[in-house]
This record gives sequence, C-alpha cells and structure tokens, in this order.
Amino acid sequence: MAERKHVVIVGAGFGGIKLAKDLADKDVDVTIIDRHNFHLFQPLLYQLSTAVLSCDEIAYPIRNFFRNNSNVEFFMAKVTGVDQQRKVVLTNHGEMPYDYLVLAAGATTNFFGMTEVEKHSFGMKTVQEALHIRNHVLHMFERANKIQDDPETRKRMLTFVSVGGGPTGIEECGALMELVELQKKEFHNLDFSEVTVMLLEGTDRVLPMMPENMQQETVRVLRKKGVDVRLGAQVVDYDGRTLKLKDGTEIQTETVIWSAGVKAVPFIANCGSEVDRAGRIIVEATCLVPGSDCVFAIGDCANYTHGTERPLPTIAPVAYQEADVVAENILKLVGGASREQLGVLHYKDLGTMATIGRGDAVMSWKGHTASGFFAWSAWLFVHLIRLAGPYTNFTVAVKWFWNWIAGIRLGRVITNITLDPAK
Amino acid sequence: MAERKHVVIVGAGFGGIKLAKDLADKDVDVTIIDRHNFHLFQPLLYQLSTAVLSCDEIAYPIRNFFRNNSNVEFFMAKVTGVDQQRKVVLTNHGEMPYDYLVLAAGATTNFFGMTEVEKHSFGMKTVQEALHIRNHVLHMFERANKIQDDPETRKRMLTFVSVGGGPTGIEECGALMELVELQKKEFHNLDFSEVTVMLLEGTDRVLPMMPENMQQETVRVLRKKGVDVRLGAQVVDYDGRTLKLKDGTEIQTETVIWSAGVKAVPFIANCGSEVDRAGRIIVEATCLVPGSDCVFAIGDCANYTHGTERPLPTIAPVAYQEADVVAENILKLVGGASREQLGVLHYKDLGTMATIGRGDAVMSWKGHTASGFFAWSAWLFVHLIRLAGPYTNFTVAVKWFWNWIAGIRLGRVITNITLDPAK
Repeated sequence: MAERKHVVIVGAGFGGIKLAKDLADKDVDVTIIDRHNFHLFQPLLYQLSTAVLSCDEIAYPIRNFFRNNSNVEFFMAKVTGVDQQRKVVLTNHGEMPYDYLVLAAGATTNFFGMTEVEKHSFGMKTVQEALHIRNHVLHMFERANKIQDDPETRKRMLTFVSVGGGPTGIEECGALMELVELQKKEFHNLDFSEVTVMLLEGTDRVLPMMPENMQQETVRVLRKKGVDVRLGAQVVDYDGRTLKLKDGTEIQTETVIWSAGVKAVPFIANCGSEVDRAGRIIVEATCLVPGSDCVFAIGDCANYTHGTERPLPTIAPVAYQEADVVAENILKLVGGASREQLGVLHYKDLGTMATIGRGDAVMSWKGHTASGFFAWSAWLFVHLIRLAGPYTNFTVAVKWFWNWIAGIRLGRVITNITLDPAK
Repeated sequence: MAERKHVVIVGAGFGGIKLAKDLADKDVDVTIIDRHNFHLFQPLLYQLSTAVLSCDEIAYPIRNFFRNNSNVEFFMAKVTGVDQQRKVVLTNHGEMPYDYLVLAAGATTNFFGMTEVEKHSFGMKTVQEALHIRNHVLHMFERANKIQDDPETRKRMLTFVSVGGGPTGIEECGALMELVELQKKEFHNLDFSEVTVMLLEGTDRVLPMMPENMQQETVRVLRKKGVDVRLGAQVVDYDGRTLKLKDGTEIQTETVIWSAGVKAVPFIANCGSEVDRAGRIIVEATCLVPGSDCVFAIGDCANYTHGTERPLPTIAPVAYQEADVVAENILKLVGGASREQLGVLHYKDLGTMATIGRGDAVMSWKGHTASGFFAWSAWLFVHLIRLAGPYTNFTVAVKWFWNWIAGIRLGRVITNITLDPAK
C-alpha cells in the first residue's frame, strides 16, 4: 500500500476550511497552517468593531471543525514562503513538507504605498484590528467627554472617518452611526451635534459591483441616517490628526478606518509564482499555479480569470467554489490522473449584498435588485446560516435581536487601555 | 435653594455600582471614577480565563447602568491619590473636587514582595489578566503540539500551576481540568498523559472560610478530577520556567496563575488615612475614614472590624452592605445630620460557596454545609441572578448550558499573538 499523501493548506479562511472539510476522512493527510488558531467570519468583522458582537462569535476555533476527523491536523505558524523545488512550506516554526499544497492565505489591507496613512489608520481585516477600532472609538467618546474648554480637539475626537465605499466601508458607517445613537442615551452631558460619521470614496460611486440604482439607494439611506457621504474624495495623506484629500480639503479627525483596498498577503510573492498587481497568483483554470502539478491557489490570494473578462471578485463564494474544484482535483491526482484530466471552475454568481444598518440593505443577483427591509432580512438569513456552527448562530441571533430591537450593545467595553493592575 | 452636593465614587466594582444605584435620582450629583469603562463581575473571571465565557459577558458598560439617571456621571481616569485638605481626588486627567468621597477602589494581587514571582506569574484580578491566561494556556497547547524531540520542554509547557487555595484558585483548577478534557478531543496527536494541572496551597487546608468537612470534600473532588493538589506548598521563587517551593521542590512549568493573596490598590496609601498591612483603610463603624466627616471607604479597600474579631472578608456581599450604609449616611449628612446620627453596618453573613467544576460545588452558611450537585445548582442560580442585566444573564446561561452539556467552549481563540496583518 502506498504511503498516504500529505496535503498542506495555508490559511483557515473560507477557502481553506471548506477544502479541509472536503478532504476530511478522505485517503489523504491534511495539515492546515494558520498564524491564528481560529477561523474568522470576516463579513461580520464590522460588527465586532462596532460592539454589536463579541470576538468569540465571529472567530471559531479551527480544531473544533475537525474534532472528529483524525486525518486533519492544525499547525499554528506564520508562513513566510514556499520552496517549490524542495516541496516545503517555510514557516516561523520550521519547514513543512507537502505532496500537495493549497495557498488559501487571503488578503490584507492595501494602502497603495501611502505609508503615513497606513501608520495612522485602522485596517479592517483582523480580529485585533476590529478590537482596536472598538476600543479606540469608545475611548474617543470618553476622552471627548472630559474636555471642557477645547471644542476643536473635542470635535476632532468625535469625527469618525471610514475610507472606501465597498461593502465593508458601507456597513462600518451604518453600524457606527447606530453606535452613536446608543452613546447619545448614555453621555448625559455631551453635545452630539459635534459628532460626525463620514464616508469617503475616491470614485464617484459606492458598491462598484452593484447596479447604479442600488448605488444611489445606498448613498441616499446612509445620508438619511446622518452619515456625511463624500464621493470623489481621494485621500492623499494623514498624520493622525489631519486627513488630506487630493482636492486640498482637510478633515480634522483622530479616527480613520481604511477599507479602500485589498492585496494578497505579502508572503505570496515568495512562493515562486507570478503575481498580479495586487500580489495575487495568476492561476490556471484548474486553480493550479502555472507550471506546477501540485501547488494550487484559491480565494483572495488567487487571480482567477477564465471565462470572465475580469478576475473573479475577492468574496467568500469564489473561495468556496474554488475549494471544491481543488479538493476534487487533488483526489484525482492522488488517484493517478494527469494534469489534463483535472476539472475547472464553472463559477456560479450568487449575487452580492450589503447591509446599511437596522432594517436596510441592498442586494443584486443577475440583474435583479432589492433593497430595504426585504433585502435586510435576506442578509440576516444568509449570514446566520453561513456562520461556523449552531452554537455561534444562536448567540449571534440573540445579540442581533437585542441590538436592533432593544438597542443593547454589551460589547461596549474598552479592554486595551492598561495592563497595570495597580490603580 | 442650596447647591446640590457632589458625591464622588472611586471604583465601579460591586460596592461602587451599588452605591451609585442607591444615590441615582436622589438630590445629589454623583460621579463614578474608574480606569475602565466597565463593571467587572469578578467571581466569573476564572471562566473568562478558561474560555467558557467571553469578555463582554462579565464586563458590563458602566454608563449602561445609569442610562436613565441623569444625576450619575462616569469619568474614565486612573486615580492616583486624594487631597483631603482641599477635598479633591487626584487623577491622571486632572483633579476632581468632591463634597463627599467614597473609596471603593477594590483590591489587586498580593505577591508578598516576591518580585520575580510577580514578574513571571499571571494575576487573576482584571479582564486583561484573564485574557492573557486564556491566550497563554491555549498557546501552550499549540506550541507543545509542535515539539517532536524535546519531551522535557513539552511537559513544561503542559504543566499548569495555580497558586492559592481560595475560591479563585479552586475554581480556576476545576475549569482548567475541564478545558484539558476538551482539548483532548481536538489534539489528535498529543499525549495527554503529559498534561498536569496543579494546585499549590501554602497552608494545610483550602477554602479557609469553610468548615473542615467542606475543605476535605473540595480536595477530594479536585483530586478525583485529576488535579494534583499539594497542601503546605509554599512558593518562594519563579523564573518563568522553574517554580521553587520552600521545601526545595522544583516544578517545571511555563504557567503560574497566582491567586494566593490580595491587597488594596496602591493609591489608597496616598489618601491621607491610616492603612492596615494589606493596604486597606481602617474605617469607623459608619464606614467613615477616621477623623473625616465626608470621606468613606468600602469593599476590598476598607478594613471593617466592628462587632467581629477579624476584619470582614473581601467579598461582594460585604461591599454591597457597606454601600447601602454609606448611601444612607451621605443622604443623612446632606440633610444636615451630625456624625453621631449616622448609621452603622449590621453585617448579614450570606455564607460562602465555591464551584469545583461541572456538577460539583461546596457551600456553607451559619454552620450548615452542602456539596455536590445541589450546591452547584445553588451556585449557578446565585451567580446568574447577580449578573449585570437580563441580557448578560441569558447569554451566560446559554453558554453554560453548551459548556456543561455539549462540551462546547467557543472562547478558545488566541487573540493576542500578533497585530501584524501581514502573514
């Protein structure tokens, strides 16, 4: 009997977890490598950053998925590159040999080379970043509340800017605005006319993947909620206090949340394959990286352009479907198939949706669109059934109910201010 | 009409919050000062440290308590001392004048001057400390799992020591042992015979406030669960790897959780009043600090020895009852009463209880004792009704159900390893 093949999956995002599930209890050994011990449900990260949900509700222990699958192991490490010659993954905990490798490492924030902006803004891609935003925003209210004589500083602390008109930016703004409404009830002496929530988008429209009427509807709803939406507003610099736009406008703010772009995680460039401008590996129709017969790339770190004019978008359904194709292809290769016999992706567009806040969302699917309460209900439903497990779903449903019906956000605790137990 | 009097409460623990609730909507202005924006339900901190509960479930936003009480304000600051002459509280955000002051600042960990032990051990008094323990313990499993050739290091990483046989140490050990059982199901290749959970107690008995039969029962149950309980084990040194006991024993461990003693928070010494060996202010029967007619101290930072041989214990019911006395006394003083007309505390002993783990607890009340499932149910009930609000209670109840019935602990996520979004 031949030795079992070792499949290494780098990254425990939507693609990586789906692939490992597909290969669980199959005749291969699987190792998932990730620098975190949890799978992150990224679409709800904005709810962590705005104190709707807790960390534990959108971060799910990886090992818990594979409790009953002894052929799936987890290896907690930071990947630094791949040596395709020697067939090893390079990590900060040594080398990991593979027979088949799947790069599903995801994306990170793209500041487009603006290092000062990067230094002073918050990214919105990790649990830590979301918790930092939460702590910082809540702290800004507490700090502003203590300032009596300096309205300029107070206003700067109470100005919250979200950059980027994609789903993350839209959802962050809507949830921030609702958080402001809750704070209003509890800061008895703060003048809330000094509070501003602002959305900056560099182009002339938000949600680029949506039809135009949904884009306009989104802007209308955000403005009605009180968000200061500015289109054609390109950020050029930020020093932690003054945000500068290309047209010369200056905005005084201590809070800039950046969701204006993504790029593949940097180590992807060290994997020995060609990458596109966003650092993603340009894969073949089988998801194999060009020239290899054992290394695949899927999800946000892969550029898949077959049968479409533009690369498939960096969204969960793409990673899911690519994972299924790769699982089948690996099993075929293990079974002795040749490169030519592998399957290719037939992408099914499941549409897109974004929530703008309580009772309001937009969605589009193959030319059909919907907005308002119906779209919001659909959004709730889709996100609940996609969460990691029945336990999480239940807590999240309960918290959403409290948040939207009772106006309760228990997550409004500032946890990173000091480690010193001495007062 | 006379100007309203300003009552400043330092500390938002059990005593401080109870007092502010007593004074809410009364004819005084109340300011609570705390370095955190949340009230911490300390008795369940061990459940945060062992991944049963989330931070948001035991930390409750202070402002949320007083949403409808416009006479209660919160001021987030770190108190550094009190100037009783000038009637101001000194904070890192300036001075806060008071007419009446209540010190309810609580306690911190007492390492009894062992600076090396303090440097390398985990305290168990704050949310951050509990999260550090959780992250560290989970990380130890992940790190040990990667070690192939060095059983000594692996065993050291898998040895978890809790120092102190009070309720916190007992509860921590029981919950750690149950966490180990959960981990066992998910680490397919780790040898769990190498895992040790150890309880060290310097005296010859645990739970000193309990009758002897309950002390023995506690040790019996812990040992049955697999905890290595060592009595008469006095820690003298720890360098992060080797824990040294007075009798010369050396224990190899990377995890020491210290709950062997408490002392008042340090700034209490700068408040201009006499303190005892544990740094607590020795108060009069009215809870006034000696010589003052407007400064009170309650809870863990007060030494109340009236009508009892020993000071009242540092537990929530004492702080609660002292808060009620002080609230009445302040209102009397505001109304023009003299020092002699103030009320004194008639302490009601509500008994003590400690949980040892799923289905097992011990309790005692005025000579009556109970243990096992009945005591555990009573513990559950008391802790649920004492939690901050209906929303929290509900989530906690659900999580407990999952934990004890289904063996699910969603909190097993390591969140502090890296802030670097680049893999």
